[in-house]
Amino acid sequence: MSFNTFGHLFRVTTWGESHGPALGATVDGCPPGVPLEASMLQHWLDRRKPGQNKYTTQRREADEVEILSGVFEGKTTGTPIQLMIRNTDQRSKDYGDIAQKFRPGHADISYWQKYGIRDYRGGGRSSARETAARVAAGGVAREAIRALLPGAEIRGYMTRMGTHEIDRAKFDAAEIDNNPFWVPDATAAETWAGYLDALRKSGSSVGAVIEVSATGFPAGLGAPVYGKLDTELAAAMMSINAVKGVEIGEGMAAAELTGEANADEIYMGNDGQPRFSSNHAGGILGGISTGQEIVVRFAVKPTSSILTTRKTIDLDGNETEIITKGRHDPCVGIRAVPVGEAMMACVLLDHILLDRGQTGGVRGPIG
Amino acid sequence: MSFNTFGHLFRVTTWGESHGPALGATVDGCPPGVPLEASMLQHWLDRRKPGQNKYTTQRREADEVEILSGVFEGKTTGTPIQLMIRNTDQRSKDYGDIAQKFRPGHADISYWQKYGIRDYRGGGRSSARETAARVAAGGVAREAIRALLPGAEIRGYMTRMGTHEIDRAKFDAAEIDNNPFWVPDATAAETWAGYLDALRKSGSSVGAVIEVSATGFPAGLGAPVYGKLDTELAAAMMSINAVKGVEIGEGMAAAELTGEANADEIYMGNDGQPRFSSNHAGGILGGISTGQEIVVRFAVKPTSSILTTRKTIDLDGNETEIITKGRHDPCVGIRAVPVGEAMMACVLLDHILLDRGQTGGVRGPIG
Amino acid sequence: MSFNTFGHLFRVTTWGESHGPALGATVDGCPPGVPLEASMLQHWLDRRKPGQNKYTTQRREADEVEILSGVFEGKTTGTPIQLMIRNTDQRSKDYGDIAQKFRPGHADISYWQKYGIRDYRGGGRSSARETAARVAAGGVAREAIRALLPGAEIRGYMTRMGTHEIDRAKFDAAEIDNNPFWVPDATAAETWAGYLDALRKSGSSVGAVIEVSATGFPAGLGAPVYGKLDTELAAAMMSINAVKGVEIGEGMAAAELTGEANADEIYMGNDGQPRFSSNHAGGILGGISTGQEIVVRFAVKPTSSILTTRKTIDLDGNETEIITKGRHDPCVGIRAVPVGEAMMACVLLDHILLDRGQTGGVRGPIG
Amino acid sequence: MSFNTFGHLFRVTTWGESHGPALGATVDGCPPGVPLEASMLQHWLDRRKPGQNKYTTQRREADEVEILSGVFEGKTTGTPIQLMIRNTDQRSKDYGDIAQKFRPGHADISYWQKYGIRDYRGGGRSSARETAARVAAGGVAREAIRALLPGAEIRGYMTRMGTHEIDRAKFDAAEIDNNPFWVPDATAAETWAGYLDALRKSGSSVGAVIEVSATGFPAGLGAPVYGKLDTELAAAMMSINAVKGVEIGEGMAAAELTGEANADEIYMGNDGQPRFSSNHAGGILGGISTGQEIVVRFAVKPTSSILTTRKTIDLDGNETEIITKGRHDPCVGIRAVPVGEAMMACVLLDHILLDRGQTGGVRGPIG
Repeated sequence: MSFNTFGHLFRVTTWGESHGPALGATVDGCPPGVPLEASMLQHWLDRRKPGQNKYTTQRREADEVEILSGVFEGKTTGTPIQLMIRNTDQRSKDYGDIAQKFRPGHADISYWQKYGIRDYRGGGRSSARETAARVAAGGVAREAIRALLPGAEIRGYMTRMGTHEIDRAKFDAAEIDNNPFWVPDATAAETWAGYLDALRKSGSSVGAVIEVSATGFPAGLGAPVYGKLDTELAAAMMSINAVKGVEIGEGMAAAELTGEANADEIYMGNDGQPRFSSNHAGGILGGISTGQEIVVRFAVKPTSSILTTRKTIDLDGNETEIITKGRHDPCVGIRAVPVGEAMMACVLLDHILLDRGQTGGVRGPIG
Repeated sequence: MSFNTFGHLFRVTTWGESHGPALGATVDGCPPGVPLEASMLQHWLDRRKPGQNKYTTQRREADEVEILSGVFEGKTTGTPIQLMIRNTDQRSKDYGDIAQKFRPGHADISYWQKYGIRDYRGGGRSSARETAARVAAGGVAREAIRALLPGAEIRGYMTRMGTHEIDRAKFDAAEIDNNPFWVPDATAAETWAGYLDALRKSGSSVGAVIEVSATGFPAGLGAPVYGKLDTELAAAMMSINAVKGVEIGEGMAAAELTGEANADEIYMGNDGQPRFSSNHAGGILGGISTGQEIVVRFAVKPTSSILTTRKTIDLDGNETEIITKGRHDPCVGIRAVPVGEAMMACVLLDHILLDRGQTGGVRGPIG
Repeated sequence: MSFNTFGHLFRVTTWGESHGPALGATVDGCPPGVPLEASMLQHWLDRRKPGQNKYTTQRREADEVEILSGVFEGKTTGTPIQLMIRNTDQRSKDYGDIAQKFRPGHADISYWQKYGIRDYRGGGRSSARETAARVAAGGVAREAIRALLPGAEIRGYMTRMGTHEIDRAKFDAAEIDNNPFWVPDATAAETWAGYLDALRKSGSSVGAVIEVSATGFPAGLGAPVYGKLDTELAAAMMSINAVKGVEIGEGMAAAELTGEANADEIYMGNDGQPRFSSNHAGGILGGISTGQEIVVRFAVKPTSSILTTRKTIDLDGNETEIITKGRHDPCVGIRAVPVGEAMMACVLLDHILLDRGQTGGVRGPIG
Repeated sequence: MSFNTFGHLFRVTTWGESHGPALGATVDGCPPGVPLEASMLQHWLDRRKPGQNKYTTQRREADEVEILSGVFEGKTTGTPIQLMIRNTDQRSKDYGDIAQKFRPGHADISYWQKYGIRDYRGGGRSSARETAARVAAGGVAREAIRALLPGAEIRGYMTRMGTHEIDRAKFDAAEIDNNPFWVPDATAAETWAGYLDALRKSGSSVGAVIEVSATGFPAGLGAPVYGKLDTELAAAMMSINAVKGVEIGEGMAAAELTGEANADEIYMGNDGQPRFSSNHAGGILGGISTGQEIVVRFAVKPTSSILTTRKTIDLDGNETEIITKGRHDPCVGIRAVPVGEAMMACVLLDHILLDRGQTGGVRGPIG
């Protein structure tokens, strides 16, 4: 099935199925000397952990990460870091019905068409469980960034849930961690809660838009043609389950602007560095970071597992119907927030290393 | 600067600056035995060739492609195909002013921040000239696809120019080649002509949205996690100059839908193959093609080179102003249509080869 | 530290240190539908397991492999196969002395010079323990090959131990598994036993040459220039610890031959396939397999850990002396035999997939 | 056919057939700011240029290299450097006979078995002509190394021609450029001249061993497992036409040594850097450079094109005979010397960039 790896110098390979014994990430290319322990990664894993509130799947997973290699005496050695998360809650019985039928909107049918074999227990590799491994790997990237670029920050939040979009005028970063939707607006959080609750009770689901912002990163990250930073970020975000659209800065809306409205003017900052009068570019020009805030958005489609009867076919090609029971999220977009942050961290670290070199310039003194 | 290559088994490396002696593409991994001659590639190059009408830059380039290797007796040999396009029109004098100043919205400043050196003659690698090489390479991919999948078709068209969007109800594929905007609606073509003409005269510019559709491709293309077909297409489109957003199927709008509205129901076609009641997924589920029409959209920002005075800085860090003269497109989105088609062709061929193998199963009989 | 992965479509990433909690291999790109269970891999692991006789390190490791992912109902699913081997015997106290001193001939000093940090417990990643993961991954490759090419065989054996070389006239494949050296000659096995026993008692060590042969593989594997099959095999074997030379067919001796003596003449076999009068080429012409036996040899240097006092320096740059105690092999070449076989299996499968495609042409029938 | 690229950050893709209009190399990843002009590359190309003396093929090629991109105002810009060499002497008539018959020892038959199509005019991609492109690319690497590591030096020479080997005691580097064999011993040069002359007249050919030495390179180059510096060098050398064996330091002979004899002792140099009492390791320990001289050797098999009648088959599978006329080298090993140097330069630069980063830390000051 291959293509389970992303990154150039900082390479992450995720492995494991939602209902196998374990899943995890093999993280290769982390610079040596970065302080790292499991608790640092657990912090981020806990953010996406399911079953924390009524808005996420009631499947309960401890999602405890173990570091099996690459760390010695509390620091990374530069060797591969193996992160393992045991699957503890594997109620396969939930999935009996879908062993024979293809769930509309799910990868079931396309996997079958490609491989002629599939792990029907919760979708195998296509399960959102895979993103737990990304979050763990992203935690490693965050620690490496912390060591290389003190002050750099990556933060994700929801800007839309179904028909509800945030009001940029009320954007309050301090509110992000105060609600289950990571929405930067206390009032919106309340409205969204009622909205999603109704959807959940009706057995329906809805999509979302997540925005991830990165500040404190240097100018010069990215490569001009096929390694554009926006290309890399688009690929990273589009690789997340259920994502169907990605935008950098103005994104799709850039199509409606004139050159005057879109091009960010340049002036000199007091620190002798160039500044921009606006950030329609999302911090990236010609594929290379300018030192401004890097802004990426992505759309997550609504969960396809719903309680409404849907037309489908079975393995024998007979037309039939299906209702997807089991434990699912009314809005998978919620748990996509920490995943988007993790992907942003991995991509940015990768490009920092491409510029600085793999060893981060570390050299061992003799004597 | 690296990252000038894309693709896994079908690998394209573009090279050359807008004002150097030549530019082109090194195409590696094309299967052997594909009928190929320069005229087949020229057909597609002519579609994006500038100076064809008042809506594209008046810079005149013959854009004649030469095949320097990889073809013997009218067929590809499986060896690298070197495609060279000589630059014939290099009025560097046009660019005198920008040698000292950074153009807002352009890659000038980010390149300088990264490399400390740049080819100011038209932006070097960041010039839209680079896309000529993509179109030539895409032509090779199209011929290989023609040989492997007779009947498969790739077609691009504009769905939005600035504030004007097409009316899907009036979609007429037959009209695409009848107007300078490749818009599938004769009436829209007229309206857009007036709209862009006004913008052009005022020295302004505007963005656009291009949609590329692929039909006749098999189910099973793509890989589940980091090689999702939508990931690959997003990266390919986002790597095109000035693109700031990419959508697959419903794209960003998927965020506003419910699971009932978004998931495409499945039934059996008369040919015993699965069919879908709709195509919100854009022909891709879980990263793998379903055999439906594959639909990608991308937004191109407005040309940053405009006749309005803009604030900027110069190489010495002094604040100053700039007006970008020179010959430019009021809507670069127009010429992005054949480029998007080319990228689609390269990505799909690459994944066909990943499934079928590099030699396409060709084996030489002895006797 | 990166570069812990090898292969193109069949990709193996090894991870883990000799004295960490575990080590293993992440195997990506195995075709779906291959029958696989841990016992099949254990068979090969047991061949290289230390402590089996007095000629290999007395360190005792169970080397029991667990399959954590990628297998469902006894068959590979095409998803990443995670192989984990717990480290059970970690007597770190053995290594106290070398925490401060660099062992001559070991990677200690070069790692320190590069990374400025190292896991001194048995060399971390540079320990021969890493090869256990290769053997496990090679076992997966062997099963995939068995499924794709029934009858294909890969076999390794020693052709030289120190000053003793085998007599090709007495080559007896049946003897390979009957002695601790995997030498294809019963008489040689006895002589070598005495020879190595003496070296072991004197606390010395010696090098070896291993030959790996592959039969039953098709013509056409490999690529002409930088993916020559001999290039790929050379890289694979040279990546094994302590290997300093690699040969294909005649190898270095080809330099002494004339064109008449070296070029293998061609004739037709009864099966209508081309045959060769000899195999100086080692089964590879122009980087591509010819269908003949593929023959690779590699030289393993003597273990650098010996009981003789050696001059060296410590972390502070002081000149000092060292005697490497701990448990070591008098001839690491012995355990390199199954490792060479594993690398051969991985490289050949990778190139079979490059030709056949990743899914091996598998397609799921509907109905 | 793919696999026409080598390198990680410094990537070289060669293209072109021996009898097409041109061949060349696309060099991607060269740092910006390196002084470069065609004459610098021509210097190295002239070293391998055929027809210079009676010991190399009388085919006359100007081998003039053109730089088509990547250089502006005499310096590299960091963009892809396209190097083109026109084929001027294409006497295809020479090759009439081999269009129907497979030459023993050549890639003819294996290519046919793989691709079912081939360019019989001089072997297409398998022609030694391809190495001209490597030498040109190596010239770029040499200039980048000169800029990054003043004083570093790469030098190749022959140590064996057929049955004649050099006497290390008489090694005189000053003699290398004084004879057509690049042998570091004036007396040997005379003997070899007579020896090869006789072989040439008899229409025979012979193999050779080339040694390439690199001095002035830092400790820390290479990666511990699959990116070992010796692995990378082995792959690079084995990818050269007709090479069948590669050795690092002691090479195959290491198998005959004891641990005492093989492990290089360590002491402190006056400059406070570690030194070694010997260099059996060839300057690489555990895959990482130690700062010592890096020593690689490779064996080139004898030219398979000889004037003796050989048994073979034709395209129809009929057994027949062939005499290879045309213009060939009695010892292709001679022209492999500059090719080996070029590969060494490319590999070392690549690993320098992996450590230092792609932009070499260059940052553009504003103001």
